[in-house]
Amino acid sequence: MIIVLRPDATEKDVEHIVEKIKSWGLTPMISKGVERTIIGVIGEEDILRVQPLEAFPGVEKVMPVLAPYKLVSREFKSENTIIDIKGICIGGKRIVVMAGPCAVESYEQLRAAAEAIKKAGAQVLRGGAFKPRTSPYSFQGLGEEGLKYLRQVADEFGMAVVTELMDPRDLVLVEKYTDIIQIGARNMQNFALLKEVGQSRKPVLLKRGMSATIKEFLMAAEYILSSGNFQVMLCERGVRTFETETRFTFDLNAVPIIKQKSHLPVIVDPSHATGKYSLVPAVARAAVAAGADGLLIEVHPNPEEALSDGEQSLLPDKFAKLMQELKSIARAVGRDL
Amino acid sequence: MIIVLRPDATEKDVEHIVEKIKSWGLTPMISKGVERTIIGVIGEEDILRVQPLEAFPGVEKVMPVLAPYKLVSREFKSENTIIDIKGICIGGKRIVVMAGPCAVESYEQLRAAAEAIKKAGAQVLRGGAFKPRTSPYSFQGLGEEGLKYLRQVADEFGMAVVTELMDPRDLVLVEKYTDIIQIGARNMQNFALLKEVGQSRKPVLLKRGMSATIKEFLMAAEYILSSGNFQVMLCERGVRTFETETRFTFDLNAVPIIKQKSHLPVIVDPSHATGKYSLVPAVARAAVAAGADGLLIEVHPNPEEALSDGEQSLLPDKFAKLMQELKSIARAVGRDL
Amino acid sequence: MIIVLRPDATEKDVEHIVEKIKSWGLTPMISKGVERTIIGVIGEEDILRVQPLEAFPGVEKVMPVLAPYKLVSREFKSENTIIDIKGICIGGKRIVVMAGPCAVESYEQLRAAAEAIKKAGAQVLRGGAFKPRTSPYSFQGLGEEGLKYLRQVADEFGMAVVTELMDPRDLVLVEKYTDIIQIGARNMQNFALLKEVGQSRKPVLLKRGMSATIKEFLMAAEYILSSGNFQVMLCERGVRTFETETRFTFDLNAVPIIKQKSHLPVIVDPSHATGKYSLVPAVARAAVAAGADGLLIEVHPNPEEALSDGEQSLLPDKFAKLMQELKSIARAVGRDL
Amino acid sequence: MIIVLRPDATEKDVEHIVEKIKSWGLTPMISKGVERTIIGVIGEEDILRVQPLEAFPGVEKVMPVLAPYKLVSREFKSENTIIDIKGICIGGKRIVVMAGPCAVESYEQLRAAAEAIKKAGAQVLRGGAFKPRTSPYSFQGLGEEGLKYLRQVADEFGMAVVTELMDPRDLVLVEKYTDIIQIGARNMQNFALLKEVGQSRKPVLLKRGMSATIKEFLMAAEYILSSGNFQVMLCERGVRTFETETRFTFDLNAVPIIKQKSHLPVIVDPSHATGKYSLVPAVARAAVAAGADGLLIEVHPNPEEALSDGEQSLLPDKFAKLMQELKSIARAVGRDL
Repeated sequence: MIIVLRPDATEKDVEHIVEKIKSWGLTPMISKGVERTIIGVIGEEDILRVQPLEAFPGVEKVMPVLAPYKLVSREFKSENTIIDIKGICIGGKRIVVMAGPCAVESYEQLRAAAEAIKKAGAQVLRGGAFKPRTSPYSFQGLGEEGLKYLRQVADEFGMAVVTELMDPRDLVLVEKYTDIIQIGARNMQNFALLKEVGQSRKPVLLKRGMSATIKEFLMAAEYILSSGNFQVMLCERGVRTFETETRFTFDLNAVPIIKQKSHLPVIVDPSHATGKYSLVPAVARAAVAAGADGLLIEVHPNPEEALSDGEQSLLPDKFAKLMQELKSIARAVGRDL
Repeated sequence: MIIVLRPDATEKDVEHIVEKIKSWGLTPMISKGVERTIIGVIGEEDILRVQPLEAFPGVEKVMPVLAPYKLVSREFKSENTIIDIKGICIGGKRIVVMAGPCAVESYEQLRAAAEAIKKAGAQVLRGGAFKPRTSPYSFQGLGEEGLKYLRQVADEFGMAVVTELMDPRDLVLVEKYTDIIQIGARNMQNFALLKEVGQSRKPVLLKRGMSATIKEFLMAAEYILSSGNFQVMLCERGVRTFETETRFTFDLNAVPIIKQKSHLPVIVDPSHATGKYSLVPAVARAAVAAGADGLLIEVHPNPEEALSDGEQSLLPDKFAKLMQELKSIARAVGRDL
Repeated sequence: MIIVLRPDATEKDVEHIVEKIKSWGLTPMISKGVERTIIGVIGEEDILRVQPLEAFPGVEKVMPVLAPYKLVSREFKSENTIIDIKGICIGGKRIVVMAGPCAVESYEQLRAAAEAIKKAGAQVLRGGAFKPRTSPYSFQGLGEEGLKYLRQVADEFGMAVVTELMDPRDLVLVEKYTDIIQIGARNMQNFALLKEVGQSRKPVLLKRGMSATIKEFLMAAEYILSSGNFQVMLCERGVRTFETETRFTFDLNAVPIIKQKSHLPVIVDPSHATGKYSLVPAVARAAVAAGADGLLIEVHPNPEEALSDGEQSLLPDKFAKLMQELKSIARAVGRDL
Repeated sequence: MIIVLRPDATEKDVEHIVEKIKSWGLTPMISKGVERTIIGVIGEEDILRVQPLEAFPGVEKVMPVLAPYKLVSREFKSENTIIDIKGICIGGKRIVVMAGPCAVESYEQLRAAAEAIKKAGAQVLRGGAFKPRTSPYSFQGLGEEGLKYLRQVADEFGMAVVTELMDPRDLVLVEKYTDIIQIGARNMQNFALLKEVGQSRKPVLLKRGMSATIKEFLMAAEYILSSGNFQVMLCERGVRTFETETRFTFDLNAVPIIKQKSHLPVIVDPSHATGKYSLVPAVARAAVAAGADGLLIEVHPNPEEALSDGEQSLLPDKFAKLMQELKSIARAVGRDL
């Protein structure tokens, strides 16, 4: 931790800070420059991180040196984490595609989607039974009925299931039907929910909050790992910017950055990252080229009738075509799909 | 709703859309321009809003004309909502100041803060018993013990209490001790939580999400009102931008905009909107000048020892000085404080 | 153009607007809904665009229906523009790589860079002789000396030259040495400069402003085309967001969006879009996978000695390795490189 | 400057960096922690700032400790700069209001505006003769004719003139007519233009770029001061964010921050910071309450006929009313207006 003092900081200010630091069992190093005095603290940065050093007289700013996350970091675990879900390995050489409708609407809708995506090569079936909607007047999901359809249809086609959990009180219910628990972007810092899935034995797909920095994203994952669940996938799904052409701006940089900083698998959701079906293929191809371990893509047998996100859902034939393109790119970067 | 077609949209595309619109009981109006065909739909926009019109062939974009919120809007209720909490009226001529430490740390700390802020003229005591922290390793709050201190100290000084609820399972507990339930910025779109407080009889102080548009902010409030609770205050607390000098960028524009669009009281939190105690007074003064109905300010008797947010907490004497300045500005804009 | 009236707009307000619209030779269509009156105007939107309709009494908002650009749009010209620079075709099947140091520092430095990148397959040599630097105390470029080195070295290796123009007074000088004139991100809305290069016969590489929307980016290009120069390439180089891990956030979505909306070639600059050499390969691969027509990459023979942007420059051997990867991906998406 | 090494940095990496630092005449201090080695450099940070330290092997990141600006800083000059323009002092106790139409359209329009704003208490007449417009098809300004009207009308009413310079080639022309040279937001990093006005003897009003950090804003001013012109005013006019309700988000925090960091006067432009006339009064009041030294407000005698920015222009009577409110607030914060 580097503590930069104000030009008008007094000797007494310096002494006061130094004493405090020593009282926490740490060793301060003082550097007096021409323009500023700087106090560096070697050792456990965590002790300092929780101290309001900027509230001390004479302090201009405090600059942390180390990353605040531990368990999610490559320094903690250098090799890639591979999550094995009934033989589907996420984080290994093979890129895993998760696809399906935004919301589970009916058994028939889900079955039609599953049949098409399975045929095209997807391994995991996605679909929302509990839907976080901006408007209280929009379709909120089928609830347990939707979860039942997901399980039934996935079993029929030999697929795994990923679905969203919104309320900590629904954990047991959702766990009963799903293979992967999704935490949505709007709940990335719903700490009550993070702690709850941290106690689950099911793998978690954590979506990045729409304005979360990569550091905050990793800290949210740290909540889950520090609660005991190490099976976490990190999903980039677009961030909020000034651009209005798309609902969100896909942050491709996040893919190589997270791969550098963390051992956890990185998934990309090109449907939410663009909000428009016509942009999904380009973003999906880019994600694979950049090193993503998996994709989460919305596919609907009949987008015109979709109760949610029809405008960003691919038709089954376009999805099948995309899967062929992705296979070529995966090969070009030394991966399978 | 205005549906703009692509230049290459066919007659068949137009017919298909028109038929669909009619099937929903609405009346489409077609305007064929030189460059584009446009379909306008008069009538209940809500029916259309949930349809994935952008998924239809030939559609370029869909532009809603009406705001998606109803109960929170000035069109629904033209006069200001005034929330009466044991005689403290929020939303009326008098500007209400809520102050106190970020987190409740001990009875002594809270009592010292309360005594000072009450003396300076604040009417509501703030303090967190459940704390949403970016890091799982940071202080997470005292829980029920903190709630008890809040109630005890507030009663001692004749103040009301505002404190944050993070988990829907804690609603009954929090309701027992508080007068106002705060929903934090990170939970602004935690829809399970919004629905829960929508069924409470306690007033709710809803904080704007750090990257929520004003429209989304109002829609989050709509969740609460549409669940039955009309006593909602809207709190601007800074949004996330590219600027790194401050933790957040205070969106002053939001104050007059929300006052124009909604009948609900607007509260400003200058502590989070800046993240630095030295900027709090200027922002607080500006908020009052711009028309805010209340302020939420962090005050700590000893910021150096604060377990949370010490760097943005005012010392009691600086708070007292600020209250004097605010009184002058309130008078200058025809309000009391 | 759609004019949405306020709920309290009067009959007189409506009449006033309608008369004005008629006075401009246009035909208004009035739709009276339950909640709002809407006035649609068919015909030449450009006439309306310059009118301050939101200043009229009773008007709530004005929504343009058509895009404000013309010459740059696919509607104006449906086939891709291909720019031919001494046989190097930009915008066709072959992806063109432009590489070289951020700043021209010396003949030796530039020659070493050029030799390496030519060998690896790049066709265009980049290098700045006039440098836009955030600080007045940073290296500002070699000026004409740098331009001479660029021409000399490029000729030696049979490459074309791209270099930045910052001041309209330098156009003739820069034109004398370069094949492509670069307009930097900070000058994207320097309209005096845009008009100036619009009168040049040299192709222009226009970089997107760091907070320019895609619409504004296309409007900036429209300035150049409308001044007579149709040889414009559009370069995505990262936008400004809240993320601090990278200098800029690469907006990959922009690649397919611009290809849909415009006939002009799209170039990606992965060096500025990340600011870190270790992220450049992933972004370059993604750009090719997403459909970019070219890349602009910083390569320095000795980044440690670079006078500008050393931290984002690739070493020649890493660049050569990247070129091999890009060739595989180009093939996978049906392109050459 | 703090250089943080990667966990896998070798002894050789450390030695290499240390030697380099010594070769620049500086003294490195090495701190070996458990998790990282850190190298601190005391002394002239400017020497290091231009070195690409992040390009060195083993370096994870480089953190500057000191601000990169000098001449604009309070450390360089602790007392407020007061700019005296024919007796109008900007930066002192009296808050200066600059007002007028966005663009000069005719002598009559300008005279009507000037008469009204003078009467209401404004001291400086604003108006654009050269207009930076997003679209090449929009009104681009009257040029010298507009400058002449500005001078003539201002003289008639005993006001000073502020007007924008867009092209370095027009400096002599603009200087001839104006008292203050405005540099627009889109040209904040047009370094050729900054250097040019740095050599003028006229005061400069520099607008903040729409996505410029406060640090970059101050660095842009540093360009002007370091070229010899110390009479610079800094104008906050809204920044670009995700919010779509307004054209820009007014960054009120910038007012107290710049006053803390710099001795230069701070001006606020509530017209551009909101883009809507109905929001201008609230923002103007807030700016005065927060400590701004001046305001720049668009006033048009007939906004419906405005050739530019009619939607954000105040009518003369609303401006007069606002001036009264501002006077009350100025008094409440110990200023005059």
